Amino acid sequence: MLAVSLGDPAGIGPELICEAWTQREAAALPPFVVCGGAGVLRKAAQQRGLDCPVLPVADMREAAAAFSHALPVLGALDGAYRPGAPDAQGARLACDSLAAAAGLVVDGSAAALVTGPIAKAELAKVGFAFPGQTEFVAHASGTAAADAVMLLAGPRLRTVPLTVHCALVDVPRLLTFELIVSRTRIVSEAMRVDFGIARPRLALTGLNPHAGEAGRMGREEIEVIAPAIAALRAEEIDATGPHPADSLFAPHMRDSFDVALAMYHDQALIPLKALDFDAGVNMTLGLPIVRTSPDHGTAFPIAGKGLASAGATIAAIRMAGEVAERRRSEALVSSS
Amino acid sequence: MLAVSLGDPAGIGPELICEAWTQREAAALPPFVVCGGAGVLRKAAQQRGLDCPVLPVADMREAAAAFSHALPVLGALDGAYRPGAPDAQGARLACDSLAAAAGLVVDGSAAALVTGPIAKAELAKVGFAFPGQTEFVAHASGTAAADAVMLLAGPRLRTVPLTVHCALVDVPRLLTFELIVSRTRIVSEAMRVDFGIARPRLALTGLNPHAGEAGRMGREEIEVIAPAIAALRAEEIDATGPHPADSLFAPHMRDSFDVALAMYHDQALIPLKALDFDAGVNMTLGLPIVRTSPDHGTAFPIAGKGLASAGATIAAIRMAGEVAERRRSEALVSSS
Repeated sequence: MLAVSLGDPAGIGPELICEAWTQREAAALPPFVVCGGAGVLRKAAQQRGLDCPVLPVADMREAAAAFSHALPVLGALDGAYRPGAPDAQGARLACDSLAAAAGLVVDGSAAALVTGPIAKAELAKVGFAFPGQTEFVAHASGTAAADAVMLLAGPRLRTVPLTVHCALVDVPRLLTFELIVSRTRIVSEAMRVDFGIARPRLALTGLNPHAGEAGRMGREEIEVIAPAIAALRAEEIDATGPHPADSLFAPHMRDSFDVALAMYHDQALIPLKALDFDAGVNMTLGLPIVRTSPDHGTAFPIAGKGLASAGATIAAIRMAGEVAERRRSEALVSSS
Repeated sequence: MLAVSLGDPAGIGPELICEAWTQREAAALPPFVVCGGAGVLRKAAQQRGLDCPVLPVADMREAAAAFSHALPVLGALDGAYRPGAPDAQGARLACDSLAAAAGLVVDGSAAALVTGPIAKAELAKVGFAFPGQTEFVAHASGTAAADAVMLLAGPRLRTVPLTVHCALVDVPRLLTFELIVSRTRIVSEAMRVDFGIARPRLALTGLNPHAGEAGRMGREEIEVIAPAIAALRAEEIDATGPHPADSLFAPHMRDSFDVALAMYHDQALIPLKALDFDAGVNMTLGLPIVRTSPDHGTAFPIAGKGLASAGATIAAIRMAGEVAERRRSEALVSSS
């Protein structure tokens, strides 16, 4: 059983959870329970015209029994459904749902966490002390934020930004040998355990145009990235690069790696969203728990209008279930 | 009649010119003449198994008469065909062919210039004093290099990098109000005249992740990009942004603009090559002459192996012809 957080009730999160539930059989989704928001979900389903009965449950056993015929909701947390109109009450509900869902996974009641989209600015207003859900989930599961690595995964591409939410001007300074090596190790291990790739191929981009053209446009490739790749290869990690970032995502190149590690946010997210917009999953690697999320925001302007695609939510739920299952198998093998 | 430069004879340029000629009818290509390299082209065609007779011609009239039944080649420049093995002799041939083709367009003998791929490092070795062909062509046509703007155009996307071949760390400093305004003006005018878009929609990206999130990750959006967009809008140029770069190239966003102006090289080239790799054209805007080029390099490792796609070369030839025709019509209208 997976635990799903509601996301901001004014966003597209609730309606997409309901839509995913209605497609549970066609999409072969593992069973899941939503933490709070029974009233919100009921209204969101109704507004989207979905046949999605919402059933409050008392525990995970009841949730498992209900899933085939109703969307199970655990806990009394709830609020108003005002799509497109975020407010403090909704932000608090989103926070509380996230904390409850994370708690279920950390204490072992649920196998994996799927988080609905929140608005960081709204959450900050009600005292949420983390830059985003990733940092919260790292904290809740006892992991240093630096060891939580963001993976974007779509049907055609997996990418990791090695630096994430910082100004572009700060990227060259933040991009150290240690950061590249430690995060790439986490990605390599996750590809093996979480994605079942026995010998993962990791392609690292350069920072500069044409990967610097042998130092003519920036020296980070020579001084930082190439040495980090050499160190990783010495550990028998199949890391290659630095590759010119502009051609790495071309169709004939995409078959040559299992995951691309980009030096900064847009280098990783531009190709992923260009190619796999409606099916992109954001997964946090390096945590003791499994956490995925649809790779889109709250999309307040289209919430409640039936326009948002549930593709990424469905993909996030499916991936969470698959990864949890692989980790379970790996643990059984390791302990036998 | 268009003038085509050979490109490095050791690269994929010559074979792709021959391939394009064989597809001249199916692809509805305008007639073109290659400047030099008759022997190189003959061998490249043979090696690729193409039925492409190569005919040396004495002038443009002969070239026009020949095009329907043979690939016309103007001038005695020639060299050895050693695919995959670049050398100084080949680099000199590439330079001389480029200079001859540019000359034909500058003096009005040809309507547009299509340049084959060269290797900058090889050309630098033989004393070519320009960072790339774009700068050479700007110089040859009497344009300041700063006013020559690179457009990448594919079937699904057009992008312009506002800064191009510089280290990433230098981008924030180079990205000034004046640069954004002057280059965007050139792009807007080119969309109108060269692409026939009466009221072009120009989408500018942000520099930082999520376009800076209201200053939380960098202030260039607030201090430089947004003021530049406001100034452009005051001139009735339909510029919008700064848009978060990661979502701007998603399928549902791509319909909302005619061209995306990115703040740096990879931001523009990653989505273009991810989506339109085999059909991307590099066109230089802001010149008195029309110049296009296939958006790929010499690809020495696959030269002579029949593996390279002629899609981008065909697209570059077709676009050069179309743009030249639009400029001619526009000039007729303006002067009537």
